Amino acid sequence: MANDELTGHSPAKPQSGRTVLDPHFDPHLDRYAARTAGMTASEIRALFAVASRPEVVSLAGGMPNLAALPLDTLSTQVAQIIAEDGLTALQYASAHGLPPLREQICDVMALEGITAHPDDVVVTVGSQMGLDLVTRLFCDPGDVVVAEGPSYVGALGSFASYQAQVVHVAMDEHGLVPEALRAALRQARITGRRVKFLYTIPNFHNPAGVTLAVERRAEILEICRTYDVLVVEDNPYGLLGFDGQTYPALHSLDPDNVVYLGSFSKTFASGLRVGWVLAPPAVREKLVLATESATLCPPTLNQLIVSRYLATHDWQSQIKTFQQNYRERRDAMLSALEQYLPPGCTWTKPDGGFYVWVTVPEGVDTKAMLPRAVSAQVAYASGTGFYTDGSGSRQMRLSYCYPTPERIREGVRRLAAVLHSELELARAFGDRFGRIQLPSR
Amino acid sequence: MANDELTGHSPAKPQSGRTVLDPHFDPHLDRYAARTAGMTASEIRALFAVASRPEVVSLAGGMPNLAALPLDTLSTQVAQIIAEDGLTALQYASAHGLPPLREQICDVMALEGITAHPDDVVVTVGSQMGLDLVTRLFCDPGDVVVAEGPSYVGALGSFASYQAQVVHVAMDEHGLVPEALRAALRQARITGRRVKFLYTIPNFHNPAGVTLAVERRAEILEICRTYDVLVVEDNPYGLLGFDGQTYPALHSLDPDNVVYLGSFSKTFASGLRVGWVLAPPAVREKLVLATESATLCPPTLNQLIVSRYLATHDWQSQIKTFQQNYRERRDAMLSALEQYLPPGCTWTKPDGGFYVWVTVPEGVDTKAMLPRAVSAQVAYASGTGFYTDGSGSRQMRLSYCYPTPERIREGVRRLAAVLHSELELARAFGDRFGRIQLPSR
Repeated sequence: MANDELTGHSPAKPQSGRTVLDPHFDPHLDRYAARTAGMTASEIRALFAVASRPEVVSLAGGMPNLAALPLDTLSTQVAQIIAEDGLTALQYASAHGLPPLREQICDVMALEGITAHPDDVVVTVGSQMGLDLVTRLFCDPGDVVVAEGPSYVGALGSFASYQAQVVHVAMDEHGLVPEALRAALRQARITGRRVKFLYTIPNFHNPAGVTLAVERRAEILEICRTYDVLVVEDNPYGLLGFDGQTYPALHSLDPDNVVYLGSFSKTFASGLRVGWVLAPPAVREKLVLATESATLCPPTLNQLIVSRYLATHDWQSQIKTFQQNYRERRDAMLSALEQYLPPGCTWTKPDGGFYVWVTVPEGVDTKAMLPRAVSAQVAYASGTGFYTDGSGSRQMRLSYCYPTPERIREGVRRLAAVLHSELELARAFGDRFGRIQLPSR
Repeated sequence: MANDELTGHSPAKPQSGRTVLDPHFDPHLDRYAARTAGMTASEIRALFAVASRPEVVSLAGGMPNLAALPLDTLSTQVAQIIAEDGLTALQYASAHGLPPLREQICDVMALEGITAHPDDVVVTVGSQMGLDLVTRLFCDPGDVVVAEGPSYVGALGSFASYQAQVVHVAMDEHGLVPEALRAALRQARITGRRVKFLYTIPNFHNPAGVTLAVERRAEILEICRTYDVLVVEDNPYGLLGFDGQTYPALHSLDPDNVVYLGSFSKTFASGLRVGWVLAPPAVREKLVLATESATLCPPTLNQLIVSRYLATHDWQSQIKTFQQNYRERRDAMLSALEQYLPPGCTWTKPDGGFYVWVTVPEGVDTKAMLPRAVSAQVAYASGTGFYTDGSGSRQMRLSYCYPTPERIREGVRRLAAVLHSELELARAFGDRFGRIQLPSR
């Protein structure tokens, strides 16, 4: 199986002290909850393994490029936190998050027009945990979540693990299409399906690379109000516009009906796992309770590190540096795509964030092609992982966030060679050998 | 309400930019999942707020006493990690956990007789997250979890958030009573209720302070095998025996039918939130998937800190120091209980861990008494929080882990004064004024 090849993940081996006759036999199979059936291996795990092979140019992962971080300063600061405040830093704290950090988070959100009270901020173990807990609070099995198509793979994983059904809504180069949203909500109402929230990434979308036009924002919110649907706004990339531009957060336009997810993973350090949720008071109180069940509290040291960094470092200049780094990489990718990709390929032109979304000509299946691309020493994320309805077989996500511009150009060059050869085979043989799958729709 | 008094948690206030007419109105009330109704304020949050008031002796919380940690050494080590390996420490990593740490965790578990392969260890954000994810994997709404009565309040919270029903099984001074377990499982089978697992804390039980007798362990495991019930063994205190004694982990006796939860919160640093699950291969693979949905990955820096600490520090001597500190505090508490508590009170005599479980005479309701105790500047955890069936109104958990021996003696002295006065009132007036509630059973 392709995933196993990519992860180098070997099947279960006999463990010391016990004999396993059939490594695929699971004696606990009858015991799992119904939701567990929906937990299937995401591509995230595969991508990390691929990215770690030095000979492969990975355009697959979403790892931020941290090289510009001031490690020496951070090292000194963290040492001070432990030496001077270690008994606090290494001790449990509240599930809600440290008050000074929650105040600073309000300052960060103000850059995108949000006026918030620190009481309404809940610190989470990355915004992934925020998303997971929001889904826990709102979704019964069978409830519908409306999301862009394509959508963030980690969100789809959370929705699946609470047995929520995803209805995808189309995007164009200006983001989510209001009429398509209205039609989806109308259809759900007609068929008696309960939509719990719209999950949306308005800025520099993962994986689509597009941004929701400002003039669409009020309309999207109005549609959700009309259909009595909550909005969950996921905004990890909002401060990574390549010209320093920002857009008004959906939360700033309708604070009582928007739950906002924020993250320091892309603007500071992903490995600290510090994110947050901004939610109306009643929801926020339930989120704190859910956090207590999930982890008791987010790590205290990590919160102090982020708080100290925000207090003492010119973090806005640091974000400008990140913007420049990512813009340079975006430019390298777009020019390489222009130069190398075969005719018939199209792609989005992101103004910020990490990703380009590529559509390949008919006759190429991006999931089937992936093992051959890896053999040619380039990796990407095939489009099917970003949908729950089987779409995406002619799409792929290319990340320009992590490799150097030179490596990005080389990766695209390799990818183009694989695409050329796939197209040649498709033209010559069609799908007669099962190697090239024609799209089913 | 007592909880609000204790937390100093004020009702919702008008937020800047919007008007809240009724602070208790929740416009999202109709949107929550069914499970959310089971998320009620645990006492954990209240306890932190109480513990933070300097004039109150808190015998309520479960915060480890970290004063003996080598903060200077840790400070230097963490600075090195960030300076030398910062791009790894601050970056995403795998959901499974860092391989060197998983190897070291196997060494830690070996102290209690466990032979494990590092592949079967999944690092979690504290063992609370392990418990939450294990419940997620196994429990459908209405499934039964069998647990000691009383049981850990954070576990009851996780079970409630997945709508699992708890059936409590009695303990005595030798821990869980095998015959009571057998009877509970037989009864569940007769009534057609599906028991998914036994949740048990065999060593230095929270809150009961007792340890499962070694000679009962095989029998407990055999009963679970007979009734086809998984065992979830939660062991945060196992290395904190006051004479350095350890007991064979249940996992060591039946590795294929026991999922083991471990933690560095009590043997190293709770604020790092590093715990783990040891599970059979098929379960472990599902746990990794569940982790991806929950947090993507545990914080990388925190794992490196624990790994460096275990590699370079004499952590076993450090645990001996913790044992001595806690023994001294246990001694202070037991002798103060002996000296001050009114006749008719009984309590357990822990050989390790953090807690003494006290039973008070009829006529005293520990939950109703708590606000008066706090007025007298001593706090405890009332027994009802450790049951889901309304039991515990004549019990309380006293923690000796955090305060100094002098403060513990003073706290017990204050508590005894409150108890004396409650008993006097009960004798004089019964429950005629609604201040003293007689137990209902």
